Amino acid sequence: MRAIVFHKKTGPFLLKDLISDIEGIQEVIGDGEILISNISTLDNASKQDITFFHNPKYIESLKNTKAGACILKQEDKTYAPNGTASIITKNPQFVFAKLIDKFYPKNVRSHAISKSAFIEPSAKIGKNCCISKGVVIGENAKIGENSYIGHNTIIGDNVIIGENTSIESNVTIIFAIIGKNCSIYSGVRIGQDGFGFIPGGPKIRQVGIVEIGDNVEIGANSCIDRGTLENTIIKNNCKIDNLVQIGHNVVIDEGTIIAAQTGISGSTKIGKSVLIGGQVGVAGHLNIADKVMIAGKSGVVNNIKEGEVIGGYPAIKINNWHRQNIFLKKQIMK
Amino acid sequence: MRAIVFHKKTGPFLLKDLISDIEGIQEVIGDGEILISNISTLDNASKQDITFFHNPKYIESLKNTKAGACILKQEDKTYAPNGTASIITKNPQFVFAKLIDKFYPKNVRSHAISKSAFIEPSAKIGKNCCISKGVVIGENAKIGENSYIGHNTIIGDNVIIGENTSIESNVTIIFAIIGKNCSIYSGVRIGQDGFGFIPGGPKIRQVGIVEIGDNVEIGANSCIDRGTLENTIIKNNCKIDNLVQIGHNVVIDEGTIIAAQTGISGSTKIGKSVLIGGQVGVAGHLNIADKVMIAGKSGVVNNIKEGEVIGGYPAIKINNWHRQNIFLKKQIMK
Amino acid sequence: MRAIVFHKKTGPFLLKDLISDIEGIQEVIGDGEILISNISTLDNASKQDITFFHNPKYIESLKNTKAGACILKQEDKTYAPNGTASIITKNPQFVFAKLIDKFYPKNVRSHAISKSAFIEPSAKIGKNCCISKGVVIGENAKIGENSYIGHNTIIGDNVIIGENTSIESNVTIIFAIIGKNCSIYSGVRIGQDGFGFIPGGPKIRQVGIVEIGDNVEIGANSCIDRGTLENTIIKNNCKIDNLVQIGHNVVIDEGTIIAAQTGISGSTKIGKSVLIGGQVGVAGHLNIADKVMIAGKSGVVNNIKEGEVIGGYPAIKINNWHRQNIFLKKQIMK
Repeated sequence: MRAIVFHKKTGPFLLKDLISDIEGIQEVIGDGEILISNISTLDNASKQDITFFHNPKYIESLKNTKAGACILKQEDKTYAPNGTASIITKNPQFVFAKLIDKFYPKNVRSHAISKSAFIEPSAKIGKNCCISKGVVIGENAKIGENSYIGHNTIIGDNVIIGENTSIESNVTIIFAIIGKNCSIYSGVRIGQDGFGFIPGGPKIRQVGIVEIGDNVEIGANSCIDRGTLENTIIKNNCKIDNLVQIGHNVVIDEGTIIAAQTGISGSTKIGKSVLIGGQVGVAGHLNIADKVMIAGKSGVVNNIKEGEVIGGYPAIKINNWHRQNIFLKKQIMK
Repeated sequence: MRAIVFHKKTGPFLLKDLISDIEGIQEVIGDGEILISNISTLDNASKQDITFFHNPKYIESLKNTKAGACILKQEDKTYAPNGTASIITKNPQFVFAKLIDKFYPKNVRSHAISKSAFIEPSAKIGKNCCISKGVVIGENAKIGENSYIGHNTIIGDNVIIGENTSIESNVTIIFAIIGKNCSIYSGVRIGQDGFGFIPGGPKIRQVGIVEIGDNVEIGANSCIDRGTLENTIIKNNCKIDNLVQIGHNVVIDEGTIIAAQTGISGSTKIGKSVLIGGQVGVAGHLNIADKVMIAGKSGVVNNIKEGEVIGGYPAIKINNWHRQNIFLKKQIMK
Repeated sequence: MRAIVFHKKTGPFLLKDLISDIEGIQEVIGDGEILISNISTLDNASKQDITFFHNPKYIESLKNTKAGACILKQEDKTYAPNGTASIITKNPQFVFAKLIDKFYPKNVRSHAISKSAFIEPSAKIGKNCCISKGVVIGENAKIGENSYIGHNTIIGDNVIIGENTSIESNVTIIFAIIGKNCSIYSGVRIGQDGFGFIPGGPKIRQVGIVEIGDNVEIGANSCIDRGTLENTIIKNNCKIDNLVQIGHNVVIDEGTIIAAQTGISGSTKIGKSVLIGGQVGVAGHLNIADKVMIAGKSGVVNNIKEGEVIGGYPAIKINNWHRQNIFLKKQIMK
């Protein structure tokens, strides 16, 4: 695997040592003394590899895996081949995430402040930050401790970035306050004017800002517009994928996940732990309550109540959308 | 409101002074001598604030506002609470836009040319321009007076930028002529090759350019491809939102507004004052006439006549699309 | 045509000389001795221009063209006006592409390595490369001969770029290997983390990379995520338009063409010579076989067999989708 050039790799480990400090492992079926040298997929794993199973689509791959060990749920253990040790857990993805960290320890980033970065004298840079080449940091901006600013990124005047936050390359952040432990990927645009036009009239200038909480991820080339009077707000633990558009004055509550190329129009409020698929469009001035799930490519034009699962355009309860599709299928078979 | 850190704020003003020079105010109901110190939303306004009402969705907020004054239309004045002065106008958004400018005067940009900008000796920079850090300006490029070029932006050889135009950070403009009073937001890409492939054949090189008129806005991370032989053209007063794709040889006539994540395929002509919602797709080689309105997420595959309002995919007259949706709803309730 | 400012132009040529070395010309009907000074569209061509016809939508423009010569297919020659010489070929677009190269020879790029580029000492730059201003090239990166890196582009540690490849401005490439003869347009993001979240759990770190073959084009502001354990792979001769999202562990086989704003979700495999329209969404973990064609704006949620032509959401055989649309049309006319 060419990844080895890009990451340090550790191992091998005895299977029992490898999993000894990972939470949530219920049982190990098989020999804990075997040597495991890497983590791999079901199809590509060899005797020296550990693999994992959680998506039923890959059941045939599980049955045929050559892996030395496999992480899987109690109910799936009968499908694992005889030669493969079974690591039983309720959450195979969690264990998988922990094992990646073991085999591929994080690259340590330098704490250097590049001589080619342009930092205004009034800006405050916390301890152990890495400020990369060609970065511009504006007046009175503050960068929290241990944060990383990638090459050629722009941090505007008065912007605040929290601790342990990573802003990748070629990013623009203006009129914004960003929390701690965030990851903002390359090409993200935060804080530009929202789309406020009166047909034939003057532009409505935007004087609100963008507030982003802690542990938030914003995917590459996504855009988050500043608010008009009040702020555009993305709360803690939200995860936003690439090429997503968040309009002005949108508020997204904690733990909401938004897949790629989705757009949220201005002034819409989205609740906690909402799951939004890719290429979804949500109209403006709506309320999407907590724990709603929205199927990919849906177009949402109405308020949605807590816990509803919706799809289609205009988006309706997902079972009704499926029924519509079945109805249409029958018509053309007549 | 944290925005105060990012913008100078003026005020307070006597209500009568605040509105004295704004056009289109028909009547003031209430006390013009009260002090107004800020502009706010219906929900958040206090006695010292002025607010505005124009979207019927927020009628309950209007009834309960604590604002000292509210801008609204004649027909809505009965909903304003007793303690709130009513400023009557036909266009509350217009007055709102003017009041933002009063309370939050525009930040004055410096006229400095950064020493870290790379400007070819043959390029011509007009008076009072701001050329920011890490900017590259190519051979024979011309930047009009009072224009702003943001950090790390690339202006290619021979590109012309008009007066009073603002190009934000991390933008790439090549093979293009841009008018005056334009705003090009961060991450915009103008002038790259259109998508011209003959399956299995050579690439069709593109030698046309992009022409952008006056008073045009292009939202963050939007892309406008150059023409093949003739030019891709966006005429005066067009407003284009974030993450929009404009294909090669598209022509967009004056005053057209395009919301986020919409894509216009190659060689399509779009008329004057067309309104296009978000995530719309328009196929190539079509004619969309003046004053057409296209609902968000529509897929347009045919020419559209003047003034038509369309929706759906394939897009049809919007009333027919609504009828289709009602029909489908009835089927699943049987 | 303003393009002349941006490109050198050659000519005029005698018609017979102009086409003498272009493959696939079957017959010339008319006077090969006329002088042709430019290439133009059917509508705008004058007697001194050559034009071309291949899209039946423009048949009226063909009948009325004033061009001195027109490239077209055998079966269309009867529509060409009397005064216009006909250049008969099976592939007018191919001849058109060759003629653009004749009238507008490629601008020769400099081979300079800018003093303002930051190149790690361990990076290897091939002969005759152009490394532009503000570029950052990381440790152990390799740039092949004759390649071009545009202004303010970031090439991360260990990244390999092949020969004759052009990476435009403001691009970010990390954790990736790129082939030869590729064109990567401005604002492209390659190699950032895929979207791997366990609701409530830790982030799944991504340690795979992105592998891009030879002769691949990636349009402006498109994003290609790195793989989790294995790699995200785009094979030779793929052409990807602007603002496209390619998720982690996607594999796209040779010669596939993807139009603007399409998104391919994680772990989906796409075959050879697949044609995908604009704004298409393909769900994760699917297999799309060779030579499939997917209509613009489709939503694909199932595996698709070789050679199928599909449309709609959920995407079905295109003829069935058309039948559904006709059925719905009839309902609303009742």
